[in-house]
Amino acid sequence: MVKFYAADLDATFAALADPTRRAILARLASGECSVTELAEPFDMSLPAVSKHLRVLERAGLIARGRTAQWRPCRIDAGPLKRVAEWTEDFRRIWETRFDNLELYLQQLQAKEKTHGGKRRSK
Amino acid sequence: MVKFYAADLDATFAALADPTRRAILARLASGECSVTELAEPFDMSLPAVSKHLRVLERAGLIARGRTAQWRPCRIDAGPLKRVAEWTEDFRRIWETRFDNLELYLQQLQAKEKTHGGKRRSK
Repeated sequence: MVKFYAADLDATFAALADPTRRAILARLASGECSVTELAEPFDMSLPAVSKHLRVLERAGLIARGRTAQWRPCRIDAGPLKRVAEWTEDFRRIWETRFDNLELYLQQLQAKEKTHGGKRRSK
Repeated sequence: MVKFYAADLDATFAALADPTRRAILARLASGECSVTELAEPFDMSLPAVSKHLRVLERAGLIARGRTAQWRPCRIDAGPLKRVAEWTEDFRRIWETRFDNLELYLQQLQAKEKTHGGKRRSK
């Protein structure tokens, strides 16, 4: 397992625990844009959106341009990659659960087939 | 993209924003155990551990046994699978960034080779 700084993961997960912030990241996934553009779909004041952006920026999930006056926001997917890598340690568990469900379903279907056959042969 | 209930993801991410809770999940990944066993490595009181377990339980990340008196805890990796699936929408971004870094490195190495060749030919 790749080791990460716990505090970084804390900040990433805390920043992602909000639907507006996840929606902002989803919007930025298709390209950089201004705060005004980001605010449009949310029916939210610019200061409220800016507050969410600061949380995302502190967690390293977005970066703000320094050159243009409108300071475009762009996503930094590095922390999201680390979240994906962190979940990998648990993949075996959900895949086993899925395999077990599949096996159970097959057993049910086999039983149904046998019973159906018996019913038909009566 | 698979759609999830935003509130579920909120609770999952909030529960994961704590190193003790992530460590508890990592421990439970290798099998169910009691609250006492879970508390051991953390130098933490049982009530403090129980508080973390309640957060994990509310987020659907663990389940508690009802039959045995020691009520063993076991992981439910379903919400972690949904976190992994949520990050998939951003994979293209971090992979592109990695490809660009690789390309940049190759260009640097090619430049270095050319300059090295020139220096040797003097």
